[in-house]
Amino acid sequence: MPSVEFWYEFASTYSYPAALRIAALAEARGMSLVWRPFLLGPIFVAQGWRDSPFNIYPAKGRYMWRDLERTCAAMGAPLKRPEPFPQPSLLAARVALALEGESRSDFSRSVFVAEFGDGAPIGDRATIGALLAACGLDPAATLERAESEANKARLKAECVRAAEIGIIGAPCLVTGDGEVFWGNDRLEQGLDWAARQG
Amino acid sequence: MPSVEFWYEFASTYSYPAALRIAALAEARGMSLVWRPFLLGPIFVAQGWRDSPFNIYPAKGRYMWRDLERTCAAMGAPLKRPEPFPQPSLLAARVALALEGESRSDFSRSVFVAEFGDGAPIGDRATIGALLAACGLDPAATLERAESEANKARLKAECVRAAEIGIIGAPCLVTGDGEVFWGNDRLEQGLDWAARQG
Repeated sequence: MPSVEFWYEFASTYSYPAALRIAALAEARGMSLVWRPFLLGPIFVAQGWRDSPFNIYPAKGRYMWRDLERTCAAMGAPLKRPEPFPQPSLLAARVALALEGESRSDFSRSVFVAEFGDGAPIGDRATIGALLAACGLDPAATLERAESEANKARLKAECVRAAEIGIIGAPCLVTGDGEVFWGNDRLEQGLDWAARQG
Repeated sequence: MPSVEFWYEFASTYSYPAALRIAALAEARGMSLVWRPFLLGPIFVAQGWRDSPFNIYPAKGRYMWRDLERTCAAMGAPLKRPEPFPQPSLLAARVALALEGESRSDFSRSVFVAEFGDGAPIGDRATIGALLAACGLDPAATLERAESEANKARLKAECVRAAEIGIIGAPCLVTGDGEVFWGNDRLEQGLDWAARQG
């Protein structure tokens, strides 16, 4: 089964609807997905940004929140803006990377729904622990694995890889032939491209 | 017939495929269009940018050009990057604004095709004059009207209006109830929104 990489960042607003939509879109095209959590922070810092561009450029931020409202309403997905925005996403990214397969995608979706559907503070260990438990995973053991030096180094390597691929935002689909499709509004296009490559 | 405003900037890459697509999309939904040329320059300057963000942030620029290649290829539209990028768009915007109705949309499409399909220098009076003639319009008389003080002032007012509406890039659709949809990838969504408002 042909495979596509789904790169996402837990602090990224458009990664939320994408994480909810992507599995059904991939299945409909007979594609398998590799969920790849990463951090946009290093990529933004390389561009000279020390905050989300949606905060640095308020007009862009206003547009994005309204656009996200419309997008979520059209999907029937709840939306509650977390405070502060962006949320600290390091812990969630480490935990997601320490999981594999469906545990990773289930946990990741649950983080996005808690954060952007319910406004929950995903930087808190209590929030992450509760989400792990709700996914049927052992919070203490998973957090320990997530915060091992090996897993921390693995996440750093993922961020380096993202920059090398040419990822400049989240979410992105990356196809086997190296094409990058950026945005929740590019999921169908990226999956169709990958399906044509076979 | 319900109406939507199509705001576009001749230097904007994604305004090119949007200008080619929008008329058929609007017609299919029974919507009429008001073509509103404007300049992004003042909006970018207000954000602290003195150049296209695709030049200021090279990684973003590389992504955009590849994305535009894919978009144009999928439409069967030619793509040739104009040099320099962005092209000076002031003259074309003044001319488009001095025209009305189908003359404006026909001329505007021809500018985009010359600029991004053929790499033509749209800041040159000779280029603009030839495009006007090809549209069956009188180059000398149109240029004179375009460069009248009244028309220059009108374009300035359009730019102020764009910023007031919350436009942060091009192209944008603006609906009767004040919603802004930014991007070639939001044309269908914006037109569908407007059609539901009736």
